[in-house]
Amino acid sequence: MEYKIGTDARCAVIGHGSWATALVKLLTAGGRRVGWYVRNGEVLESLRAEGRNSRYLDDTEFDRDRIAPSDDLDAVVREAEVVILAAPSAYLKTFLEPLRTPLRDKFVVSAIKGIVPGDYQTVVEYIHDRYELSYKQIGLISGPSHAEEVSRGKLSYLTVACTDPENARLIGSRFATDSVRISCSTDLYGIEYAAILKNIYAISVGMAVGLGYGDNFLAVLIANCAAEMTRFLDGSYPAQRNTQVSAYLGDLLVTCYSTYSRNRRLGLLIGHGCTVRSALNEMTMVAEGYFAADCIRHINFRHRVEMPIAEMVYDVLYRGASARLRMKELTTKLI
Amino acid sequence: MEYKIGTDARCAVIGHGSWATALVKLLTAGGRRVGWYVRNGEVLESLRAEGRNSRYLDDTEFDRDRIAPSDDLDAVVREAEVVILAAPSAYLKTFLEPLRTPLRDKFVVSAIKGIVPGDYQTVVEYIHDRYELSYKQIGLISGPSHAEEVSRGKLSYLTVACTDPENARLIGSRFATDSVRISCSTDLYGIEYAAILKNIYAISVGMAVGLGYGDNFLAVLIANCAAEMTRFLDGSYPAQRNTQVSAYLGDLLVTCYSTYSRNRRLGLLIGHGCTVRSALNEMTMVAEGYFAADCIRHINFRHRVEMPIAEMVYDVLYRGASARLRMKELTTKLI
Repeated sequence: MEYKIGTDARCAVIGHGSWATALVKLLTAGGRRVGWYVRNGEVLESLRAEGRNSRYLDDTEFDRDRIAPSDDLDAVVREAEVVILAAPSAYLKTFLEPLRTPLRDKFVVSAIKGIVPGDYQTVVEYIHDRYELSYKQIGLISGPSHAEEVSRGKLSYLTVACTDPENARLIGSRFATDSVRISCSTDLYGIEYAAILKNIYAISVGMAVGLGYGDNFLAVLIANCAAEMTRFLDGSYPAQRNTQVSAYLGDLLVTCYSTYSRNRRLGLLIGHGCTVRSALNEMTMVAEGYFAADCIRHINFRHRVEMPIAEMVYDVLYRGASARLRMKELTTKLI
Repeated sequence: MEYKIGTDARCAVIGHGSWATALVKLLTAGGRRVGWYVRNGEVLESLRAEGRNSRYLDDTEFDRDRIAPSDDLDAVVREAEVVILAAPSAYLKTFLEPLRTPLRDKFVVSAIKGIVPGDYQTVVEYIHDRYELSYKQIGLISGPSHAEEVSRGKLSYLTVACTDPENARLIGSRFATDSVRISCSTDLYGIEYAAILKNIYAISVGMAVGLGYGDNFLAVLIANCAAEMTRFLDGSYPAQRNTQVSAYLGDLLVTCYSTYSRNRRLGLLIGHGCTVRSALNEMTMVAEGYFAADCIRHINFRHRVEMPIAEMVYDVLYRGASARLRMKELTTKLI
C-alpha cells in the first residue's frame, strides 16, 4: 500500500527540547500552523504566554498564531497527519506511552537520532513494530545540525528520508527556509544507522583526545570511522548510497569534531581516566552513543561486519576494558 | 622493466624544511646512515656542529653518525639508491636544477604534496617526464602528517605508494617507528592527487570560516569535498580504491580542520575580505593550494569531472570573483 502525504497535511511535533524547538521554528516559517505536544508545564506556560520556550533556545521567538502547544497528546496527534517525533530516544517510550489515538493513518517522521534503549531497535524500527506502521508511512529527518545554529539562522543542511521520494520532498518543503537546505533520500535504513553510529564514533574520538593522541591520529581515526560506517551500512543493508554527503559523513564530522558533543565528552572523561560510571554520572543526560554501542553490537551479531572501532568502544563502556590498552590495540588496525 | 629496491638500499633526502627534517629523523631511527642534501649554509652548519636543524624542528636531535648532510647535490644523489624529494614543490626545479648525476638508475620517492608550478604537472609526473623515469621507479609518501607531531613522536600514519607493492613495503619499513605506522598502496595516482586536492579544499574551508558560516555548514562542505575528491580520482583514473582511509580522507580532514594550515589561512583572509593579492602577501610562503587550483582546473579540462568546489576556489583566486557570492552559489550545489 502506498501512502501519499496530502499537500495540506498538518504537522505536529512531539517534544520540547532544543531540537524540537528548532524544528517547530522551521515549520512555522512557511506560515502554517503547527501542533506541538509539550509535556513540561513550565515550558507550555512560557510558550503560551510569551511565545518562547523558557528552557531551550529561549531566544527563539514564535508567532503564537502559528503554534498550538498542548499537553494533550491525543488531541495533538488526532489533529495531525504528519507526526514528528523529537523527544530524546531514551524517553520516547514514556512520551508515547499515554497515547490512545491510533497512529496507523498517520505519517510518522523521526527526528530522533538514537536507538530505543532496551529493545535493540532504532526509532524507525520501534515505530514500525510497536504501532504496526508500514515503512512507507515512516520518514526521518537527519543531518549535521546543532539546534543552536539552525535556530540562529546559520546555514544548515537537513536530509529527509522516506521510501517514497515524493513524500520526502513534501516533508522537506515544510522544513526548508532561507538558511536550511533540504536534501531528499530514500535510504531510510542507512541514514538512521549513520546517525546512530556517529555517536559511538564520537565517543572513540573523545577517548583518543583524552588519552593524548594528536591531530594526525584523530584525522586517521575519523577517516576509519567513516569507512567502518560505510562498511556496516553496505554490509547490513546493501543499497546504492554515497556516504560522502551531509547526512552520513557530514553528520559524523560535526559530531566528532564538535567539542560540545555529549558523546565526545563522555569519551574524553574516560580517556582522562574517569571510570565509566563516574563519567556517566558527570553528564546531565546520558550520551546516546552509550546505548548505541550496546545496540549496534547486538545487531551486528547477525551481520558480522568488521567493526573494530565500535567494538573497542563497547569493550570499554560495558566490559571494563582499559581505554588506553584497547585504543592502543585499535591503532594497529587502522589504515 | 621491473625495478626492485635492494634491501640494503641507501636513502638520501633532498630538502631541509620541517618535513624533510622529520623524515630524516624517522629514517635514522632504524640505525641506518642517511644522505641529506642541505642547500642552506646555516642549516648545514648547525647539523654538522650540533646535530640539529637550526631553522626547522630545532628541538629534534640527530645522531651525527647517522646523517651525512652535504651541499653537494651530485655526491648525495650518487651515493644513494633511493632519493627522497622533500623540498617544497614551488622550489623543486631550482633544487634539482644543478643536478648532473643521472637519476635513471635510482628509485625516486616524492614526499612533496603539491604540483610543480608552471608545468601543470604533479611532482611524480614531472620526475617521470623530465628525468625519464618509469612510474615503476617512482614512489610517494603521504598521509595526514603535521611534521611537528611526527617529530615529537605523536602517533601518525603514513602511506607509501609504489606501483610494485614490494617496493612500497621496503620503503615503508624504513620509515616505520613506534609512533609512525605505515600503510602501503599501489595507487600512486590517487594518493598524489588526493594530497594536491586537499589543499584546494582547505582554502574553501578557510573562506567559509572567514565568511561566517557555522560548524554545520563546514561539516557539509568538507563531506562534499571528500565526495568531489573521490569523484575526480575515480573519474580521471578509475581504480579499486577506498578513499575513506588515512591517505585520502584522513589527510583531507587534518588539513581542513587544522587552524595551522597555510591553505586554510589563505582562504580565511580572503573570506574576511582581503583581496587575493594582499592575502598572498600576508603569507610567508605561498599556499600550495593556490597553484593547485589552477593546475587541477587545467587537468580537468580533459576529464570534465564535476568539481563545483575547486571551481569556486579557482574563480575567487584567479578571476576576481567575490568569495561571498561564489560561496553562496556553491551552497545550492552541496548535498
